Amino acid sequence: MQPNYPIADPNDERLNDFRDLSTADKRPDTTRGVVLAEGVPVVERMLASRFAPHAIMGTAPKLDRLAGQAPAVPRYAVTADLMAEVVGFHLNRGVLAAAERPAPLDPARLLDEARIVVVLEGVNDHENLGSIFRNCAALGADAVLFGPRCSDPLYRRAVRVSMGHVLLVPFAHLPAAGWPGDGLALLAERGFRTVALTPSGESTVAQALAGRPERVALVVGAEGPGLSAEMLAAADVRAAIPMHRGTDSLNVATATAVALYECMSQ
Amino acid sequence: MQPNYPIADPNDERLNDFRDLSTADKRPDTTRGVVLAEGVPVVERMLASRFAPHAIMGTAPKLDRLAGQAPAVPRYAVTADLMAEVVGFHLNRGVLAAAERPAPLDPARLLDEARIVVVLEGVNDHENLGSIFRNCAALGADAVLFGPRCSDPLYRRAVRVSMGHVLLVPFAHLPAAGWPGDGLALLAERGFRTVALTPSGESTVAQALAGRPERVALVVGAEGPGLSAEMLAAADVRAAIPMHRGTDSLNVATATAVALYECMSQ
Repeated sequence: MQPNYPIADPNDERLNDFRDLSTADKRPDTTRGVVLAEGVPVVERMLASRFAPHAIMGTAPKLDRLAGQAPAVPRYAVTADLMAEVVGFHLNRGVLAAAERPAPLDPARLLDEARIVVVLEGVNDHENLGSIFRNCAALGADAVLFGPRCSDPLYRRAVRVSMGHVLLVPFAHLPAAGWPGDGLALLAERGFRTVALTPSGESTVAQALAGRPERVALVVGAEGPGLSAEMLAAADVRAAIPMHRGTDSLNVATATAVALYECMSQ
Repeated sequence: MQPNYPIADPNDERLNDFRDLSTADKRPDTTRGVVLAEGVPVVERMLASRFAPHAIMGTAPKLDRLAGQAPAVPRYAVTADLMAEVVGFHLNRGVLAAAERPAPLDPARLLDEARIVVVLEGVNDHENLGSIFRNCAALGADAVLFGPRCSDPLYRRAVRVSMGHVLLVPFAHLPAAGWPGDGLALLAERGFRTVALTPSGESTVAQALAGRPERVALVVGAEGPGLSAEMLAAADVRAAIPMHRGTDSLNVATATAVALYECMSQ
């Protein structure tokens, strides 16, 4: 087990990737693209992922819970007060790990090996993005494919809400040019049935997934505006989750969960 | 159409139920139990609900969108800046309605008329509560029954996240004494099959709902601790949502949505 490095100076440069987390123009996850994992379970998921952390900062009890994992990563032991001073607020999860972004994954290669994927268009809420990844992990989506106008899934809040699954469920960006045609072509070439989730769908999700298609791409858009007219027209089928009492829609992450559950049930 | 009353003085007493919304020891939703609806769609749901508002405050364009509805309710027209001064922050939904709490509903009478209900134990997160009500409205639960250690579903944040459905989906509190036995007795007497959602369930949700039981009570607990041992032991069946990749659980509102969807699919 590697030693912890105790740090007592809040200005110690080794803590720079954990500094000013709530200051928009300084925070390392947005200004420098550092990926931050927060709390023991999420740090453990980062250690098991393609995101290799280069530093861990935590209170001694939290670092003890990570003992023996990833012995090469330096871990900086701090008090809760010092951590609050560095981070900019009291972080009650007590431990953070920082990683550089690895090279983006190739969407074609991801699709080669996937059976069920979720395609996002205009999902620009970090909390929804995080929830979608959590649901993908739990309910068996093999990958997430990003279309245009989505937020960064590696923003700290998205990582946290995903419970770290944004680090484990592979994702890639579809070509922005020629959207949605060029992106959908990658799916069509591989035999994916693209099912666009929309309250105005001509079929139910269960009907759209009947016969258990070999490969399925569930396409979801932002709450409110929903999917673009171009995407709705280009998908193989438009499917609704049957709803009651004139409710307009489910939350986008909840709708994704229900559709994945239906995939799994077929 | 009733006139709007323009108000230019931020200290006008007619605005008192909309004051200091983020100040813990003053906010009207917690200190005086005022129920607040926020934004045009949620105010419209309040107007259609058993929660009769006694005042509406909004910018002129938002009040115009409510023209003709509930003509007896006074509506106070204010600028966005004055609203921010009263509320304590900029409220971009631009309109608020305030209602007193009506008498609590009787759980026995609610259960008499319900076929599918959701029972909550220890759900103490306002956002999860709001999401649960939104999902209940969309996916056909007839009522929500509260057990012990839950938060107030009429807190402003819960109302907002529910999209106002906490005002429309009826709810009542089960007897706190003798929990869970006395509460479950009310369900059993009426032929409800109580299905406790838990990752350690002996059956899947689909199995637990097979044969489409006449009446179903889905019982859910807080994320993390989950349901109490007493509740797990007392339920008719413990059911899991099948999950992948060693994920621990779904969000409680998401799990509720999936189980309600399964109810609906049977």
